Amino acid sequence: MTAYKDLSREELLELKSGLEARFEEVKAKGLKLDMSRGKPSAEQLNLSMGMMDVLHSGVDLICEDGVDCRNYGGLDGIAEAKQLLADMMEVPKDNVVIFGNSSLNVMYDTVARSMTHGVLGSTPWCKLDKVKFLCPVPGYDRHFAITEHFGIEMINVPMTPTGPDMDMVEKLVSEDASVKGIWCVPKYSNPQGITYSDETVYRFANLKPAAEDFRIYWDNAYCVHHLYEDKQDYLIEILSECKKAGNPDMVYKFSSTSKISFPGSGIAALAASEANLNEIRGMMKVQTIGHDKVNQLRHVRFFKDVHGIVEHMKKHADIMRPKFEAVIDVLEKELGGLEIGSWIKPLGGYFISFDAMDGCAKAIVAKAKEAGLVMTGAGATFPYGKDPHDSNIRIAPSYPTPEELAVATDIFVLSVKLVSIDKLLGNL
Amino acid sequence: MTAYKDLSREELLELKSGLEARFEEVKAKGLKLDMSRGKPSAEQLNLSMGMMDVLHSGVDLICEDGVDCRNYGGLDGIAEAKQLLADMMEVPKDNVVIFGNSSLNVMYDTVARSMTHGVLGSTPWCKLDKVKFLCPVPGYDRHFAITEHFGIEMINVPMTPTGPDMDMVEKLVSEDASVKGIWCVPKYSNPQGITYSDETVYRFANLKPAAEDFRIYWDNAYCVHHLYEDKQDYLIEILSECKKAGNPDMVYKFSSTSKISFPGSGIAALAASEANLNEIRGMMKVQTIGHDKVNQLRHVRFFKDVHGIVEHMKKHADIMRPKFEAVIDVLEKELGGLEIGSWIKPLGGYFISFDAMDGCAKAIVAKAKEAGLVMTGAGATFPYGKDPHDSNIRIAPSYPTPEELAVATDIFVLSVKLVSIDKLLGNL
Repeated sequence: MTAYKDLSREELLELKSGLEARFEEVKAKGLKLDMSRGKPSAEQLNLSMGMMDVLHSGVDLICEDGVDCRNYGGLDGIAEAKQLLADMMEVPKDNVVIFGNSSLNVMYDTVARSMTHGVLGSTPWCKLDKVKFLCPVPGYDRHFAITEHFGIEMINVPMTPTGPDMDMVEKLVSEDASVKGIWCVPKYSNPQGITYSDETVYRFANLKPAAEDFRIYWDNAYCVHHLYEDKQDYLIEILSECKKAGNPDMVYKFSSTSKISFPGSGIAALAASEANLNEIRGMMKVQTIGHDKVNQLRHVRFFKDVHGIVEHMKKHADIMRPKFEAVIDVLEKELGGLEIGSWIKPLGGYFISFDAMDGCAKAIVAKAKEAGLVMTGAGATFPYGKDPHDSNIRIAPSYPTPEELAVATDIFVLSVKLVSIDKLLGNL
Repeated sequence: MTAYKDLSREELLELKSGLEARFEEVKAKGLKLDMSRGKPSAEQLNLSMGMMDVLHSGVDLICEDGVDCRNYGGLDGIAEAKQLLADMMEVPKDNVVIFGNSSLNVMYDTVARSMTHGVLGSTPWCKLDKVKFLCPVPGYDRHFAITEHFGIEMINVPMTPTGPDMDMVEKLVSEDASVKGIWCVPKYSNPQGITYSDETVYRFANLKPAAEDFRIYWDNAYCVHHLYEDKQDYLIEILSECKKAGNPDMVYKFSSTSKISFPGSGIAALAASEANLNEIRGMMKVQTIGHDKVNQLRHVRFFKDVHGIVEHMKKHADIMRPKFEAVIDVLEKELGGLEIGSWIKPLGGYFISFDAMDGCAKAIVAKAKEAGLVMTGAGATFPYGKDPHDSNIRIAPSYPTPEELAVATDIFVLSVKLVSIDKLLGNL
């Protein structure tokens, strides 16, 4: 393939006219396709239907230690749910608290509590003139929405193939006491599918923050979300590394079963040091009488233990893998060598990250929409929705059927080509 | 019966000696009884076990409007759950948002949001020097815990047989702009079982607050929790009254199915004006991707409609009524005419409120504990745990079995008598 930049104006115009004809054909079909959000497909949801059968009126809803899950009590989770999530999160059971159905909600509450009450005795952030969070980019829009909601200033930190630019992280964290946190998706990151290297995790654990109330928000959302059995990323466990480094309180680690069982009806967990958890329990005691223990029990009875989760995730992978490969194949076949975009082939997670030529992302997403394909809004992967290069596009291949996905990726590729030609022709 | 105050010192001493002997007998049994919290009994929980059967792998988990409850989405609740809770809360469906498993959590979040973001554009409360809440007393300790947690100053407002002292409420709300809210349990109040009169509700709806961001926190926790079919309290619906009075935004109305289905595994709801709900949805959008829709669907499939809830509550009443009557009977039989305590016989709710002679409540609760009976801590029904008269004790008859309840009430009555005698003898 010849790179588009090496084509003459005439060649580009001729190419464009052919592509436009194809685009109009697709557009005429009046399609409605969605690659915008990391939603499991119906086929994946069916994998967990057995969870609806483990609790029924013929079995008791009593925990191993005698707690009746149907009644009040059990503020921080039932023992067996703690064990299940602790094993999945690779931390001791005593370092885990079980929450409700949403780890995002736990993150929100963690920031909200810091705003009104500070962190382990520090000044409440709402009393400070300036609070900042570091945001590895591209990243997860809902993380950024939380910090923006609370008026926290967000600073972009570029992602590298081994995780965030740690030179920049170390400098900002150690020099600026108004830097109170950093958002991380350390494994199969959203959207790039990058897993932080051992060195990156060590450097995180050994940060020397200027702020005593600086915390790493370690959102391990995709900890068991591999695509392959034989090719898997491995992430060093941060909680124990922080402890070893003499920074036991520096990290909050979040996870949930949202993309394991049912999104919205799973269980969430937070792992942290005893000091952090005690503070959090203190707030929980005021906030709620306890989370949904019946649903915790339902998860434990269905998965039994972490091996059950691992086996279950293989079934998810069997559904997800062909979808990822279909998208990657089309990207490689249609865009390889054209030098109008780059992408990373991930080994897990929910997304493929695509980088268009600078200044093209918004136009590509708009073009795709013309033909009935909804993508995540361009810019969404950056704080304030502002991608300084207008380049990154998040592709979410999980929800469409394989047939829809083939058509959707075709539309995407067509849109990339057409917009890139316009860019090279100086029309953008 | 002769009132204790009319007995001579000698008579009191003789009485005391007999009672002490009986108390030692009971104490020797080494009992463990609990009348401290409003927990449903196992028998009541069994009423809802059918809820575990309505969803199974053989039925779909799809809403009437096609929403798949197993996936992300549906931020403010599924349509049929809104209808169910709206009917129960006697408000239009469009004025309801469905939350997670805990209305207390919704109240907490509502206060937390006001702290960091204000209310419909007002100054965030955390930026103000002083924020105050009115607290009808005796009241619900967990309400008071929320406002105390956020450093909000609490002002006691005495309860009357028709609700809070409205002269005091009107004066404080209209004159002091730092008064931002009032906690109300308007029906079968916690702990007195009082239902606000029509006039009280009208006066609430017609308040003229000095603060634009003043809100009534209307915790209608016991809206369908009657004890009798033929004797029921009736509460005027506040949302429509506020609307009629030109104060549509002045009230947040909370409810849940916690004491209808399973505490901790029910669904909670908030009813409010469109303006209030839009603001709340704005925060929810940042806080979560949505609450547990599968559990919402489970409730709808089990109860079907509000009539299903009403029928279900009759079964709860059949279990609760004899317990309430057993306690009331013992109180009447053992304490009637002695003038050492008073109580209200409620027609619903979860509690019986007992007022001892001034300065006796703490001692009575401590005395009962000696014999193995745990009561709600004296003072818990007041802000900061401080009952200015040290008089109020909350009795929660729901959890013990009828047999346990008979023994527990005996211990309680003995404790009241013994402490009252000590009080009259000048020993306290």
